[in-house]
Amino acid sequence: MKLYGYFRSSAAYRVRIALELKGLSAEHIPVHLVRNGGEQHAAAYASVNPARLVPTLVDDAGHHLVQSMAIVEYLDETHPQPPLLPADALGRARVRALAQTIACDVHPVNNQRVLRYLTETLKVSDDARQAWLHHWMHLGFAAYEAMLAGSDATGRFSHGDTPTLADLCLVPQIYNAQRFQVDLAPYENVRRIGDACLALPAFEKAQPSMQADAE
Amino acid sequence: MKLYGYFRSSAAYRVRIALELKGLSAEHIPVHLVRNGGEQHAAAYASVNPARLVPTLVDDAGHHLVQSMAIVEYLDETHPQPPLLPADALGRARVRALAQTIACDVHPVNNQRVLRYLTETLKVSDDARQAWLHHWMHLGFAAYEAMLAGSDATGRFSHGDTPTLADLCLVPQIYNAQRFQVDLAPYENVRRIGDACLALPAFEKAQPSMQADAE
Repeated sequence: MKLYGYFRSSAAYRVRIALELKGLSAEHIPVHLVRNGGEQHAAAYASVNPARLVPTLVDDAGHHLVQSMAIVEYLDETHPQPPLLPADALGRARVRALAQTIACDVHPVNNQRVLRYLTETLKVSDDARQAWLHHWMHLGFAAYEAMLAGSDATGRFSHGDTPTLADLCLVPQIYNAQRFQVDLAPYENVRRIGDACLALPAFEKAQPSMQADAE
Repeated sequence: MKLYGYFRSSAAYRVRIALELKGLSAEHIPVHLVRNGGEQHAAAYASVNPARLVPTLVDDAGHHLVQSMAIVEYLDETHPQPPLLPADALGRARVRALAQTIACDVHPVNNQRVLRYLTETLKVSDDARQAWLHHWMHLGFAAYEAMLAGSDATGRFSHGDTPTLADLCLVPQIYNAQRFQVDLAPYENVRRIGDACLALPAFEKAQPSMQADAE
């Protein structure tokens, strides 16, 4: 398998964690999202992923898979051990909802291309950009924390005592929060679960700082 | 079942289509996202959905389900006919990726709370707000169209000849595009499939204009 990614991309980070948890190896191909106006815009990458985003996973049969949550579910269906989604429909709905609380409500508003538009097109100041980042992260973490605190299904991890798709989305968002100095003090369960995840070798190896293209 | 929604919410619209396709009835409870600064911020709604977003589906056992894609997958797992995801893992990955191309890359950047932040906090002009909306929609539709045009799996609908989760995300996004005068002429497959969907009674009944809270 090949994974086109970028060390700092939350979405690529999610897939790296899934590969590590499943014990799957992939050749990592870095696509620098900033250098040269963004290598994802190079003509060669359009044939890899027409949306010009990372990650793209190319499996051993040559299929191109895009969108990180879809990739993780595919890996989970094709390599079921250890499972990244619960066995019951209600549990799966909760894990997907937690994952989407990050992957739909927070990350898309704060990703690199949106920040670039704010700065380059809307001429937003550095302070206003920082306030934007914090605003959406606090809304998202508050919702995530409330969902954790309000459910008996919360365990050592976001759902039960093994990592799920929800944790794969949470941990990269915590990385972003720390990068942009967002105070996570109000989010007790978020912090506890983030620490529990990073104590596992799979999460640790998937970290941005551990990637070959890290700066 | 009860569905907390708003006639114009893309995310609620997705769930309404799923309910109609499955032949499931739900009491629709409108949550006006604009009036009174947004009814989703009322204290009573926090206990319904801590993220203060729509939709929330309350099933017959009283479980609260949030996040539209997670809700649709839950309905599909608990009421399998007609299926909204393909039977094969690769097909499911493609349908989820198409859905997420809308639900992660376009809709979150253009939803009501983000537009309000642009206008009220960043003091963005009406023209710049319109340009923002068009920018993200064109990027998203171009990616979706390329994924349709580049795959033999595209049929009468986004994946094969029956509607899937992908179409449930596409049609509300087309509604938004039309609302904000986005020219869909470049997206031939998108337009064709949007028309095919709206020719089905389930999609027609789920339309914003058909809801009791429509304005």
